[in-house]
Amino acid sequence: MQLEQTFPASDPIPWIHDLPAAERYLEDFAAGQRYVTASVVVGVDDIKEFAACFDPQPFHLDEAAAARSLFGGLVASGWHTASLAMRLLVESDLRIAGGLVGVGGEIEWRQPTRPGDELHVESEVLDVTPSRSKPSGIVSMRAVTLNQRGEPVQAAVMKLRVPRRPA
Amino acid sequence: MQLEQTFPASDPIPWIHDLPAAERYLEDFAAGQRYVTASVVVGVDDIKEFAACFDPQPFHLDEAAAARSLFGGLVASGWHTASLAMRLLVESDLRIAGGLVGVGGEIEWRQPTRPGDELHVESEVLDVTPSRSKPSGIVSMRAVTLNQRGEPVQAAVMKLRVPRRPA
Repeated sequence: MQLEQTFPASDPIPWIHDLPAAERYLEDFAAGQRYVTASVVVGVDDIKEFAACFDPQPFHLDEAAAARSLFGGLVASGWHTASLAMRLLVESDLRIAGGLVGVGGEIEWRQPTRPGDELHVESEVLDVTPSRSKPSGIVSMRAVTLNQRGEPVQAAVMKLRVPRRPA
Repeated sequence: MQLEQTFPASDPIPWIHDLPAAERYLEDFAAGQRYVTASVVVGVDDIKEFAACFDPQPFHLDEAAAARSLFGGLVASGWHTASLAMRLLVESDLRIAGGLVGVGGEIEWRQPTRPGDELHVESEVLDVTPSRSKPSGIVSMRAVTLNQRGEPVQAAVMKLRVPRRPA
């Protein structure tokens, strides 16, 4: 995988990147904060390897069969796209204290990822909800995965469990 | 991976298994139909390999670090659980014409998958919505992934695009 930073040069919205570089706690998140990850190029072999393990369908495994499918060519499993988005977020400098722990969310595959596509994730904090009973809370984050043409391939809203800053 | 059929012996609800064994079209689905997949045992190496590729966090990669994390031990990435659920559905005899094509859905991780867990998926058709413009429709399906103790590790509602039967 090829990783490359792709930060937009200017943006009026507060970037999480501007926050202190230490690990982030619940108190460090606020609605409207945005975050852009590095990017990853998805190779044809990556697509086939993931599919062989987790989604062994012809349009993920074989070019000729894929050409005859509704996709018209080889495409990545949606779960492959989702897993790559996770990797981009984990390897970014989002650095949530205790790790990036999702409790769930919603996901939409807008169009397939195809061989050679270069994906990155653009995120925005939607909501921060402290728990009443635990020393943590839930950060809801919209995470849109875009290809090299800026087209969304996946849109997700993920709920992350984030610890409060220790007293 | 170890695959084993685990069909409950008796159930009052109509099983998709009882439908004709040919490929299934939109007309073959109806709310209330249920479906149970085979099962898969998740090994410690499977967990670490998936994590190294897609979710490289200490609690997915290293027993000692995981013991100190909020999970108290090594756990699988939620995306690994999701991808295994997909494999179980793809390898089942659900056999949707044109393949199992998800357009999106909701997902919740109820508890982590741990090394040695044996997972299977129990599904129920919630809703069938024909498209107004396309020769297909959307089948909404609840898919709950359970471990060997019958505890849900993941609950999802997935929307699948399913073609109409050709005239």
